[in-house]
Amino acid sequence: MAIILIGERINGSFKDVLKAVQEKDPSVIQGWVAKQEAAGADYLDVNMGTASRDPEDFAWLVRVAAEAASVPLSIDCNRLDMFTAGLGTYREVAGDERPVLINSTTAEDSKLLPLLEMAVEYNAGIVGVVMDERGSPQDVDRRVELAGKIFAGALDAGVDPDQIFLDPIVMPVKFMQDQAKHVLDAIQQITMLSDPPPHISVGLSNVASKTEERKLINRTYLVMAMTMGLDTAILNVCDEEMMQAIATAEILLGQEIYSDAYLKAYRQRAD
Amino acid sequence: MAIILIGERINGSFKDVLKAVQEKDPSVIQGWVAKQEAAGADYLDVNMGTASRDPEDFAWLVRVAAEAASVPLSIDCNRLDMFTAGLGTYREVAGDERPVLINSTTAEDSKLLPLLEMAVEYNAGIVGVVMDERGSPQDVDRRVELAGKIFAGALDAGVDPDQIFLDPIVMPVKFMQDQAKHVLDAIQQITMLSDPPPHISVGLSNVASKTEERKLINRTYLVMAMTMGLDTAILNVCDEEMMQAIATAEILLGQEIYSDAYLKAYRQRAD
Repeated sequence: MAIILIGERINGSFKDVLKAVQEKDPSVIQGWVAKQEAAGADYLDVNMGTASRDPEDFAWLVRVAAEAASVPLSIDCNRLDMFTAGLGTYREVAGDERPVLINSTTAEDSKLLPLLEMAVEYNAGIVGVVMDERGSPQDVDRRVELAGKIFAGALDAGVDPDQIFLDPIVMPVKFMQDQAKHVLDAIQQITMLSDPPPHISVGLSNVASKTEERKLINRTYLVMAMTMGLDTAILNVCDEEMMQAIATAEILLGQEIYSDAYLKAYRQRAD
Repeated sequence: MAIILIGERINGSFKDVLKAVQEKDPSVIQGWVAKQEAAGADYLDVNMGTASRDPEDFAWLVRVAAEAASVPLSIDCNRLDMFTAGLGTYREVAGDERPVLINSTTAEDSKLLPLLEMAVEYNAGIVGVVMDERGSPQDVDRRVELAGKIFAGALDAGVDPDQIFLDPIVMPVKFMQDQAKHVLDAIQQITMLSDPPPHISVGLSNVASKTEERKLINRTYLVMAMTMGLDTAILNVCDEEMMQAIATAEILLGQEIYSDAYLKAYRQRAD
């Protein structure tokens, strides 16, 4: 019942990761694998960012991370050729059974259908972001509608319901303040799409983009989203205050048993 | 739209307040009035605790607080003679117009009816706690049922809907862990009793009673309750991290306008 945490740090938009890819230096990547696993990550996101569109660079990054990691990866890009390279490499390194996520598809058929096919082919879970050819929804209803479309499409394609993650798209509160509440309401409604509810995931850090209180906004919003039914998030697992907020929210939602030492127990869960 | 904050500190269960009442020393009370107003309290709770059942002690306490305060008081006791003494003194000091809360009634007719009469007589708002002769509810439905009873009773008695505060009873997570989630669900359902929704208030600190992470649990639970529709709370307004969490939750719920300096703006709201 505990939230599924996807570590965000192996991302080419961070300079150290970018440099590591350019110089093909595995040590930085290995370091972030170890740090995020120690902090409690259930998955590690692997994302080239805008640094490179070269499937070989991406395959290198996935290989280094998959070899170092004991938790599954979330293969994060937006090009089919990169997904093919990343997933192929992952299966080569990690074998057929270790879980993996395709992060992400949209609800647009031209993207959704080939990625669902790939999910089945590689025995992968899939994150479906509720946007389509018309862009990102500005309201609750459209978010829920597109979540329903992705969920139904994934089931039709043969993806295990437990491997479908719906992402209602968190927007920066600084620039689109009203979307923050819309996403919370959408999360609650998406929980009702099936019983048990589908996984719902957000890319958390976007909410605090360009703000001066990033960590406070991130952890506050995560607690709010968990209250509404969020059960998965891509975030900075190395943010200690965030992890304490998560542990506390899990206690208050009855997802973990209370003990006086619940924070300590939470930290040890990763070990 | 911002949450209504009731400062909890003038309470005879704190030793300094108890001593002040015993020695009839107003300075400690005046100090807590000033500190809580500066921290942003919208109301100040005034509670003898178990220190005294003497209506004259309570009247003294209310008088000192009402004379020092520029915000309204929440008259907090559980005896009719103390309410009469407290409210009479308050109206003497504060005049007929300054708001005041009766904190609290239960849903039991023998208590509810005389206190509603008193609310009308003294032009006071009322906090109604969802318990009755059968005690505190252990589930969501009974909480909502008793909230509905109190709300309807208060309307029938002639209390302004904006002066009715429904309290779903927060329980200590350490001893009754499953109640934490029940209260959150009850809050959301109580918001649906009327449009606009009734005020919903909690005595927050109870959730963290006897825990080792009191402040963390308090502020995390408050954010969760606000997400569900809570708009009033009795709490420690001098807890800076709590106030930062509240300010952030208000921004994320769209209750206040975002600015980069929203934390500073929130602190200045009290001045």
